[in-house]
Amino acid sequence: MTRTVLESKTKTVTIGFDEPFCVIGERINPTGRKVLAAQLEAGDFSTVEKDALEQVACGAMVLDVNAGVVYNSNPDPNITEPPLMTKMIELVQGLVDVPLCIDSSVPGALEAGLAVAEGRPLLNSVTGEEDRLEAILPLVKKYNVPVVAISNDDTGISEDPDVRFAVAKKIVERAADFGIPAHDIVVDPLVMPVGAMATAGRQVFTLVAKLREELGVNTTCGASNISFGLPHRHGINAAFLPMAIGAGMTSAIMNPVRPVEMEAIRAANFLMNHDANGSEWIKFARVLDAVAEGTPFPQASTAQAASGGRAGGRSGGRRRRA
Amino acid sequence: MTRTVLESKTKTVTIGFDEPFCVIGERINPTGRKVLAAQLEAGDFSTVEKDALEQVACGAMVLDVNAGVVYNSNPDPNITEPPLMTKMIELVQGLVDVPLCIDSSVPGALEAGLAVAEGRPLLNSVTGEEDRLEAILPLVKKYNVPVVAISNDDTGISEDPDVRFAVAKKIVERAADFGIPAHDIVVDPLVMPVGAMATAGRQVFTLVAKLREELGVNTTCGASNISFGLPHRHGINAAFLPMAIGAGMTSAIMNPVRPVEMEAIRAANFLMNHDANGSEWIKFARVLDAVAEGTPFPQASTAQAASGGRAGGRSGGRRRRA
Repeated sequence: MTRTVLESKTKTVTIGFDEPFCVIGERINPTGRKVLAAQLEAGDFSTVEKDALEQVACGAMVLDVNAGVVYNSNPDPNITEPPLMTKMIELVQGLVDVPLCIDSSVPGALEAGLAVAEGRPLLNSVTGEEDRLEAILPLVKKYNVPVVAISNDDTGISEDPDVRFAVAKKIVERAADFGIPAHDIVVDPLVMPVGAMATAGRQVFTLVAKLREELGVNTTCGASNISFGLPHRHGINAAFLPMAIGAGMTSAIMNPVRPVEMEAIRAANFLMNHDANGSEWIKFARVLDAVAEGTPFPQASTAQAASGGRAGGRSGGRRRRA
Repeated sequence: MTRTVLESKTKTVTIGFDEPFCVIGERINPTGRKVLAAQLEAGDFSTVEKDALEQVACGAMVLDVNAGVVYNSNPDPNITEPPLMTKMIELVQGLVDVPLCIDSSVPGALEAGLAVAEGRPLLNSVTGEEDRLEAILPLVKKYNVPVVAISNDDTGISEDPDVRFAVAKKIVERAADFGIPAHDIVVDPLVMPVGAMATAGRQVFTLVAKLREELGVNTTCGASNISFGLPHRHGINAAFLPMAIGAGMTSAIMNPVRPVEMEAIRAANFLMNHDANGSEWIKFARVLDAVAEGTPFPQASTAQAASGGRAGGRSGGRRRRA
């Protein structure tokens, strides 16, 4: 059984075929968030703090940290990202005790994050591009961490799933040359918008099953891409996630502060027999009750956790009433 | 490709591996509905009429008709069900032009329904019990109709999915002895409540794939059984249906007057590439908008259909705005 082990200072999260779906919170990322970008340039980390706490309260098991802000004062990310990544990692791991996913296209920022991250973070990401393979895989080996492998290469993103599978295979093989095992590669097969490509859903389901059976790797995706441009996106996402889980997907990088998607994932965990006695579902149902009564999802999740059950993880706490 | 063809007076519905999921409306059934049972005994069919119209408006492609009322005045269903079935079938097919599913445990009621149903109805059901096989398969052959095959037999309902598969295989083989092809058997692999049996979800997903690959049959289920006894049942159902569809399930007998479950099915159709250009999804999104604004789902669906798009089926009508 493929198991990708992540660690924070004291907690272990395993991405695996026989584990609950691993929700990697995507919010700490200034890309496309102008307010957050401006805050970071001004040295204001209040949104990062809020995003860290809320995502974990809502059920994120891992937090992605991306420092990809382009400062008005200095547009070179090779200069600006490494120190910002250091600062953000230190801040987040001081607030919450979950493994981190160090996310950057700048190798120097990845290494800066690796230098300060406690435990065993996930590196995000390598691709099949030659320069990325040569820059990132030595870091993966040096720090003995797992890595997200995105299945595009120097030719771009192929619309042909067989090509994307071949790129993933190449990355796994190149990693093996560095002594990195397949269970430390988490492949992102790339989710296309179903509104633009009618086969997008089926492609992912087929690819995930093949990646799992033939390469023995865990998988992840940017889940919300599937519904890009469509009305009622949450409805598409909330069907896509259980279908991907049923096909064998083991994690996603996503917004956990959305009750519709989190409900779909918790129900899918139960249906995959990854929620013993439904105890997580029953706790989550109480959160949904509070949301239905008007409490925002993060606050409802925090209150439920404080009441004895940990909504954000697997807890040994007794439930008071079924 | 397995295709189970159903017909009403003028419409054809195909249950198939490459077709949108077939929603069979379950509401016209007095079992567990005391008010409806009393109405039927008193000759009041107003609820049947309402249920027929609302279910079709909300997206039912086939309507199940069950006349299983136990009259206070005459407790023998062999006497009471056949004439009631005749009356209900005639009433329903006079109101809506969708294929019917004739549902009874009384062979005389099934035959009464077959005698009056227009087109090519679905018969519901045969089991692996010897007396049922001998009573029902001749009717299936005589009327050349497809039949739901429930995978229990004289030993009851097995918790072992291999036994349920074996029962389904036996029914398919016995039907073949009567000259009934596998594509006219729609197997119900029996959905257990996941709250009582932790493997219930995975059992269904595995069984559906196996039934499809090894027996070449379409499948159906009583979908809401999966969530029996649990809080927030709709959330479990809304994850179960897409997962079952991803595994290959091609129909369900269910309540279509529930927007959460119908949203999940419409999203899953889109993700399975069974909704060209997402046109059904986009029409349905307008219904959801109206529901969010307070319009009841049946009325919102009816209004959307009246505006030019048929929310309950595949329409050639042009949509006015994407």
